[in-house]
Amino acid sequence: MSGERLMVVDLRSTAQAFNLPDRVAQAITDATPAGWRVHIVSAVTDSFGDGAQAPSEESLRVIPDAEVYVGFGMPRALFLAGAKLRWVQTGTAGVATLLFDEMRNGACQLTNAAGLYGPTIAEHVLAGVLHFLRAFDLAEEMRREKVWDQSAFATPRALVREVDELHVLVVGAGGLGSEIARRFSALGARVSGVRRRPGLGLPPGFDAIHGLSELDGLLPLADVVVLATPLTEETRSVLDARRMKGLKPGAIVANVARGALLDEAALVDGLVAGRIRGAVLDVFAKEPLAADSPLWQLPRVVWTPHVSGVSPRRFWDRLQDLILDNWARYRAGDPLRNLVDKRAGY
Amino acid sequence: MSGERLMVVDLRSTAQAFNLPDRVAQAITDATPAGWRVHIVSAVTDSFGDGAQAPSEESLRVIPDAEVYVGFGMPRALFLAGAKLRWVQTGTAGVATLLFDEMRNGACQLTNAAGLYGPTIAEHVLAGVLHFLRAFDLAEEMRREKVWDQSAFATPRALVREVDELHVLVVGAGGLGSEIARRFSALGARVSGVRRRPGLGLPPGFDAIHGLSELDGLLPLADVVVLATPLTEETRSVLDARRMKGLKPGAIVANVARGALLDEAALVDGLVAGRIRGAVLDVFAKEPLAADSPLWQLPRVVWTPHVSGVSPRRFWDRLQDLILDNWARYRAGDPLRNLVDKRAGY
Repeated sequence: MSGERLMVVDLRSTAQAFNLPDRVAQAITDATPAGWRVHIVSAVTDSFGDGAQAPSEESLRVIPDAEVYVGFGMPRALFLAGAKLRWVQTGTAGVATLLFDEMRNGACQLTNAAGLYGPTIAEHVLAGVLHFLRAFDLAEEMRREKVWDQSAFATPRALVREVDELHVLVVGAGGLGSEIARRFSALGARVSGVRRRPGLGLPPGFDAIHGLSELDGLLPLADVVVLATPLTEETRSVLDARRMKGLKPGAIVANVARGALLDEAALVDGLVAGRIRGAVLDVFAKEPLAADSPLWQLPRVVWTPHVSGVSPRRFWDRLQDLILDNWARYRAGDPLRNLVDKRAGY
Repeated sequence: MSGERLMVVDLRSTAQAFNLPDRVAQAITDATPAGWRVHIVSAVTDSFGDGAQAPSEESLRVIPDAEVYVGFGMPRALFLAGAKLRWVQTGTAGVATLLFDEMRNGACQLTNAAGLYGPTIAEHVLAGVLHFLRAFDLAEEMRREKVWDQSAFATPRALVREVDELHVLVVGAGGLGSEIARRFSALGARVSGVRRRPGLGLPPGFDAIHGLSELDGLLPLADVVVLATPLTEETRSVLDARRMKGLKPGAIVANVARGALLDEAALVDGLVAGRIRGAVLDVFAKEPLAADSPLWQLPRVVWTPHVSGVSPRRFWDRLQDLILDNWARYRAGDPLRNLVDKRAGY
């Protein structure tokens, strides 16, 4: 074993949806080239949010020899014990809690799994928005009361619309934002995007792209506002109480990125007042959702417990491809895919 | 007035979603050419299903002079009173109850509104299928119980999938079927169609097209089965109890055409047994749904009261275009759009 380079794979999740399947563990092992060794950690880890916040004993034991670590997140204690680490691949999209000082300032490369969740989360957003466009919430209320009232679906309360009537605004025009935009534009919507660096150009699916500073002017024009941006100091509370009040009446709001991107209390106010047609919420300020949150019961909400990225088959197909491709690039000294800009925070 | 040719427009519906808007009435009036007169009936009519089953007094009074009738349906009594009728345009997609003997055997042209509902109903089907793909039903149960359980979304109960994992089978490959197919194939699904005359070729959106006789072999392969065919003697109970049992375990069934296309009791059995993942039901054997139907309360059902074609803005844009276009064609002696084949029944 001496002299062999070590890759530690720490992807046994407590959550079944994200627990490393045997077939993927086997594929990684089978792809191990001469001079390398792979250690598959048996201990479980936490795959949700930015991933594990504390390392398992097993991962702590093997990390000192590791040159590469593949896990859900990277707890600071584990990173500090991994003196030989040159590359960390996280299976999470978000990396906020991985950017502690030693990671930010060190030379170790950090890659994330941002784009891998894109197609899945984009379908989730589409599902949630269509739920309101077809007034499924109204139908469910009606069904509970055993009422058959067709006319109600033509009222402003129902606000039944087709996708091609919508102006969709996506905050965040990265991999995820672009997957969302492509689906809505394929169905005929006009899609605008907001990003930190609009000069990077027009990503696929968007009709127009703007800087974050133009957000105030754009929000009142949007029928659907989707938050699909990483949580950074710049995007924290990007949809705050003031902006929430400036939304177009009847707008649909979707948050599939991080709870802290919006002001939850202001969103609840807008829903209760009927100014907001509906909300598609997969992420929350506090997770699991606080027991006293009104979001457990509020109508006009498509609620899911941070699972918009769950895709039991496709996720592992994509993560396996990314790991094997990036591992080959790393060995060849080529640029890695999904390299995190540690200063920008994503 | 004598000598003028008369078009009667009978589109004031009891249902708000389908009540002729003033702007459309005005557009038709404005388009009246020299030598023609338009009578807009003020009395209300019934726009659901195949449309009105009985004429209003006002329509009976004006019909004897009419050469063209535009309404929701065509009651036999009204038709018999319209001795000069040469063309009937119905705002409904279905025409089953319009094909009484005098209509079938007469020379009067009959055109329907089949394609007009296509885009709307197709979005409805997509919304309903995505509801199950993202396990929104499971999330709603969980929310009611105030449970936060992410792992459940990776279980076979949830059966979370992406559209590109699906084989979608659409029974009926006409205007509606093709709109459905185009949306699912745009999202990556493999889409097969079944139609009476497969020799007509591959309509847009379909990967393959088969004859109705091949249905038994196709059903066990489909993850989603969508009924989008007119109700004829050939398609009545096309998804009967035997075929329902032969569906792929975990299949999703959608019916947005006519209730009599499937065996409701067998569908309920499949849902209760968990063999069928979910059903998207907009039409029922009896409408309004019978008070004692289990479909008022059964889980795993996206229920709507025959409103999948409701689209308050787009419907009237489309119907106005069709009426004005067909009227011009009629006057020029050109073939009409959406001409019903009275023998085939659609």
